[in-house]
Amino acid sequence: MSPEVIFDPFTNLYSKATRLVKSSEIRDLMSITGRHDIISFAGGLPYIDGLPKDELASVMESVLQNSHTTALQYGSTEGLVGLKSHLADLMSEEGLDADTDYILITSGSQQALDLLSRVFIDPGDSVVVEGPTYVGALSAFRPNNPEFITVPLDENGIQTNLLRQALESSGGKKPKFIYVVPNFHNPAGVTMSMDRRLDLIEIAHEYDLLIIEDNPYGLLRFEGKPLPTLASIDRDKVIYVGTLSKIVSPGIRVGWVLAPSPIIEKLAKLKQSADLCSSNLSQTFAEEYLQRGLFKKNIPHIREIYRVRRDAMLSSLEENFPEGASWAKPGGGLFIWANLPSYLDTAKMLPLAIEKKVAFVPGGAFYHDGSGRNNMRLNFSFPSPEEIYIGIEKLGTVIRKEMELYRSLGISG
Amino acid sequence: MSPEVIFDPFTNLYSKATRLVKSSEIRDLMSITGRHDIISFAGGLPYIDGLPKDELASVMESVLQNSHTTALQYGSTEGLVGLKSHLADLMSEEGLDADTDYILITSGSQQALDLLSRVFIDPGDSVVVEGPTYVGALSAFRPNNPEFITVPLDENGIQTNLLRQALESSGGKKPKFIYVVPNFHNPAGVTMSMDRRLDLIEIAHEYDLLIIEDNPYGLLRFEGKPLPTLASIDRDKVIYVGTLSKIVSPGIRVGWVLAPSPIIEKLAKLKQSADLCSSNLSQTFAEEYLQRGLFKKNIPHIREIYRVRRDAMLSSLEENFPEGASWAKPGGGLFIWANLPSYLDTAKMLPLAIEKKVAFVPGGAFYHDGSGRNNMRLNFSFPSPEEIYIGIEKLGTVIRKEMELYRSLGISG
Repeated sequence: MSPEVIFDPFTNLYSKATRLVKSSEIRDLMSITGRHDIISFAGGLPYIDGLPKDELASVMESVLQNSHTTALQYGSTEGLVGLKSHLADLMSEEGLDADTDYILITSGSQQALDLLSRVFIDPGDSVVVEGPTYVGALSAFRPNNPEFITVPLDENGIQTNLLRQALESSGGKKPKFIYVVPNFHNPAGVTMSMDRRLDLIEIAHEYDLLIIEDNPYGLLRFEGKPLPTLASIDRDKVIYVGTLSKIVSPGIRVGWVLAPSPIIEKLAKLKQSADLCSSNLSQTFAEEYLQRGLFKKNIPHIREIYRVRRDAMLSSLEENFPEGASWAKPGGGLFIWANLPSYLDTAKMLPLAIEKKVAFVPGGAFYHDGSGRNNMRLNFSFPSPEEIYIGIEKLGTVIRKEMELYRSLGISG
Repeated sequence: MSPEVIFDPFTNLYSKATRLVKSSEIRDLMSITGRHDIISFAGGLPYIDGLPKDELASVMESVLQNSHTTALQYGSTEGLVGLKSHLADLMSEEGLDADTDYILITSGSQQALDLLSRVFIDPGDSVVVEGPTYVGALSAFRPNNPEFITVPLDENGIQTNLLRQALESSGGKKPKFIYVVPNFHNPAGVTMSMDRRLDLIEIAHEYDLLIIEDNPYGLLRFEGKPLPTLASIDRDKVIYVGTLSKIVSPGIRVGWVLAPSPIIEKLAKLKQSADLCSSNLSQTFAEEYLQRGLFKKNIPHIREIYRVRRDAMLSSLEENFPEGASWAKPGGGLFIWANLPSYLDTAKMLPLAIEKKVAFVPGGAFYHDGSGRNNMRLNFSFPSPEEIYIGIEKLGTVIRKEMELYRSLGISG
């Protein structure tokens, strides 16, 4: 990685500049959080060394020896049928029975969100998002200028009673879709309860609405039993978005959409004009990786690495974060969402944290209107447990100092 | 390749359906042209066996052994800096001196066209395209609904006198850009002359217009000396689009844009919401391939294969196509564009050709308004010289029969 390439924590990317935040001050600060001397809880990067390196090399050797005329050629816009069968297997791990005809391979799930945004959002449309919501979804939806209806989450996921209220008060105007991340939410870490899942599907029928179910982390469960995906409860109302980024590799850019046939056709048509097809090299590689059973073999290993890191972060938060701070324990995934006393502004604390060589994402990035100012998203998949202990301790110090400052000014809860 | 995957000659892709043609009849016919028993001049596929297979495997082994934490991780939206340096080297082969800061890596050049379309085309805008023009450009521009101004080509490229006329008669309305393929045009096979290049740049200054220079085939030159790229003549007015698809591999989906900094920033911002970043696996692979000098080593070999195939097609056309048919001899690239007597309709002849197990793309696909009905695009890079002789002979028979039929009805030139 060249030294001028820096890390963009808002989108989990190495980049020259972060572009989603309005404040140029935060942007400038963020531009240095990719430096190797900074402990970053800001990204959403998987831990690549958790992958079986030698087996990956063997997979690729086989692809280039036996399938090079496919791997290096143009592919179909819809994606390789062989890969789709394996993705169907993967979805069946979460109880979702999928037909390969209804799968479109995309260049990461981000492209799925972009295509869905372009197909569905017309001028004047509204969409429902969770509060907080995935920053990449906001950035995929924004170019088509929807009105955002934000429905708050709690520890059981989207608050469906508040969703009902929002729909009732919309004066009959139907949102184009409801976008949710039911499992191990990014950034909130929470999982939608079974009751809420059923209620959400009921609402979709009652108001004749589509749901986009984004499920990048469902198979990164550390404990407990999986809840059924929304798509497995109701196929007609749910557009399911999946990705191999967090469970195999983000470098291959393999995501997919499972949706009713007319939607897949529209998305495929748009994908054809957007990039013709996804990489056949990546697809044949992913197909062979799944074919050999390496995913099933390796996923318990990755889960264990991430569980240890989550626990390190939880105990470190317990020790170091001040009274008045709170967080939910995520049952899987990559993120912890910390709530700080309401008078604090995490965006203002970021420069102080970076001075101490630790970074996070201020909560405002995960709301369309910039609320969530007293929140921070903390990633535990990329830093080591040791880095987590050191970094959270530093962050605790920054927060305490900030609270003292406010207290000395008479501003505190 | 699974049997239900079929070839889409309009976009060079294997697909379940072709979607760009309005006629469902043609679409149905095209859906079978990917069958292995059909000699297809329809696609625009490079010949993958022209690549050095063992060296490719060695490149990939090195990538996964030495750079796997980069190759399998998220990358920057702008693309890997190391790859960009090599792309700059590649551009210098055509006399274009590029700074890596002004390069954005895209998922194939198709994504570059899509991003440019989204950044530039607002409601009510017009764009200038050549007649005929690349079908993928039409499909990238169409979702943003521009008015298309088509300026005819001749054997020296875009007819700049007609471009001037079109601009004069536009009532002061400025097109957003002029889209051209100066070298070994797809579908027309022609190359823009030096005079036309200079005149086009002059027009861009005179009318304050941007040019999009799409150059996928420039390095596939069979004879003669390269003409300067438009971007090397004038950097401010020209957005240059490149791709490794035709000179390395389309399966890796590596394209790029070279443009003034404010344009690159806008494109990168949109790319971030479109797919976060291009595949790091593909990028590290391409970087290592170029780094090892394999491109420079292999390109003369590919040129020679394609030159032989072009010559096979030219002599076969000479032998088998009837009087009244004509074509330009392309000095490089992948395509020959045949003109048939004006009363013929190639779309109507396609079923007859497919009955004889040979396929081509009817000319109408390459015009926004469906003109070019008496043209056909013939690809010579994918079929072998033997297949070319057999296929062109069959096609000649189909055309002659069709001409006889018209003659017998008293309709002929």
